[in-house]
Amino acid sequence: MSLDRLIEKIAETQNPTVVGLDPKLEYVPEFIKAAAFAEHGETLKGAACAILEFNKGIIDAIYKEVPAVKPQLAFYEMLGVDGIKAFYETCEYARARGMYIIADGKRNDIGSTAEGYAAAYLGKVQIGANEFEPFPVDSLTVNGYLGSDGIEPFTEICEEYDKSIFVLIKTSNPSSWEIQDKMIDNTPVYEVMGELCGNWGLQSLGKYGFSAAVGAVVGATYPKQIAEMRAKLPFIFFLIPGYGAQGGKGEDLKAAFDSRGLGGIVNSSRAVMCAWQKEKCDENDYASAALREVLRMKNELINIIGEIKI
Amino acid sequence: MSLDRLIEKIAETQNPTVVGLDPKLEYVPEFIKAAAFAEHGETLKGAACAILEFNKGIIDAIYKEVPAVKPQLAFYEMLGVDGIKAFYETCEYARARGMYIIADGKRNDIGSTAEGYAAAYLGKVQIGANEFEPFPVDSLTVNGYLGSDGIEPFTEICEEYDKSIFVLIKTSNPSSWEIQDKMIDNTPVYEVMGELCGNWGLQSLGKYGFSAAVGAVVGATYPKQIAEMRAKLPFIFFLIPGYGAQGGKGEDLKAAFDSRGLGGIVNSSRAVMCAWQKEKCDENDYASAALREVLRMKNELINIIGEIKI
Repeated sequence: MSLDRLIEKIAETQNPTVVGLDPKLEYVPEFIKAAAFAEHGETLKGAACAILEFNKGIIDAIYKEVPAVKPQLAFYEMLGVDGIKAFYETCEYARARGMYIIADGKRNDIGSTAEGYAAAYLGKVQIGANEFEPFPVDSLTVNGYLGSDGIEPFTEICEEYDKSIFVLIKTSNPSSWEIQDKMIDNTPVYEVMGELCGNWGLQSLGKYGFSAAVGAVVGATYPKQIAEMRAKLPFIFFLIPGYGAQGGKGEDLKAAFDSRGLGGIVNSSRAVMCAWQKEKCDENDYASAALREVLRMKNELINIIGEIKI
Repeated sequence: MSLDRLIEKIAETQNPTVVGLDPKLEYVPEFIKAAAFAEHGETLKGAACAILEFNKGIIDAIYKEVPAVKPQLAFYEMLGVDGIKAFYETCEYARARGMYIIADGKRNDIGSTAEGYAAAYLGKVQIGANEFEPFPVDSLTVNGYLGSDGIEPFTEICEEYDKSIFVLIKTSNPSSWEIQDKMIDNTPVYEVMGELCGNWGLQSLGKYGFSAAVGAVVGATYPKQIAEMRAKLPFIFFLIPGYGAQGGKGEDLKAAFDSRGLGGIVNSSRAVMCAWQKEKCDENDYASAALREVLRMKNELINIIGEIKI
């Protein structure tokens, strides 16, 4: 089952980290951009080619040490059709190296449309006698503001194709309080969303005690809420963004994890992609710098949560 | 300013309707599919080609009578990279015929990522010395669950490039009550979202008394909420889905409109795209059937709201 596979990869690498592939052009070394622009000009295609090459270098450097990548769809969509092609090829490249792929798209819509998103990222599409996988990913982030009938098309497809979703509960950004922390009969909105998420997840318990199809997004920048939601939802696996560049600290994450070292996967995007800029190393070494940051983060997390045992 | 342009087109056509282009393959006449599959095989590319041709036929039939189209991104994403290309070309085709284009993507994320979505759909992207428009659209639907810092990147881009967003307030689906109707100090969540939307919109008042950059999505299936939100947000233009196939009726919409016949634009997707199936007419006449349904709906709405005067 899908999140069981993720948990097994986390245990195998002893690393509860997912690397966010949110490549902006300014993160990409000059030599990669120069080659891409020489071939395709300073165009959307040239930029898409540059970020794909950049991603491939990072994936090659980290795939033995990191269980998962999380490409952020916005950064591919901003390069138009060519960007979406780079997204596809990034996912394909990571999958070929055995990584678990979480498409960060925060998709949401009414049921009949959610079916479309579910088929796009988690399912297959029948065209005449043939079946196609529109995008090769394992998991998708979703927004539950529309309620159950906007989520069920995803959970059904997860069941059918062994995939997973992560539902936004408490997001890592400063303004998340404006809706998410408002109180409904002494319960904050994020907890009401968490309860719904729990109901959706209970239908698919996996072999490690977590829902194998439904996880939740809880920001590293809100440690109190991580602890609260862990207590309320012991069977929901967390995707935890906001570590590093957004200010979330390793020790703040401890509450997400149980005595086996299981409970969540922590995202780092900019700190890994821009490690070469922070280190001020030779730009040719950007991928090794990414690996160094990944290993530093892995050690920090393992020091806090202990050895991961399944 | 962007929604002023939409309002002017609504007045010009005397038609407060947006046609949702949410093409599933089963809506497309056989002759179109046969031609596309003959050229590209029964593939994602073949399917994307078929829906593009289908869309073009509908756009050609309706563009003089309808101010706007609303392609739903999910149905293009489910055909992979080729589907996104069909989305791009659909938008380009509709724009060339003067239509206002609302990309229905319900995008949302933290600020730095929302900037990416804003650039993708509403802005431009700088690559070296060149500037590109990733997708040729005028407006994007967005989900405000993350709060102001996830919306401001959109409103800034709207200001810069004369575009608009529609924020989900009360969605048309049956489960929307699960979060949206919960009470926060005697105020339902959708109204709290509406207040935020009002704040975002007040910064950009246009010449017809409505925010020219920020509108709201309120489902035709919830007439009481339409009336409530109209009273609370007299300066916010509504995008109203759920008419027709989802059960929303013309008379239920009256409260959205003021004495000038302004206040919202009503979406119809399946009723227009599948008019030829409902009429059981020759499939070659699918586009004329779409136009007949558009004119029927226009008359129904104009009978209710009266002549549109600006």
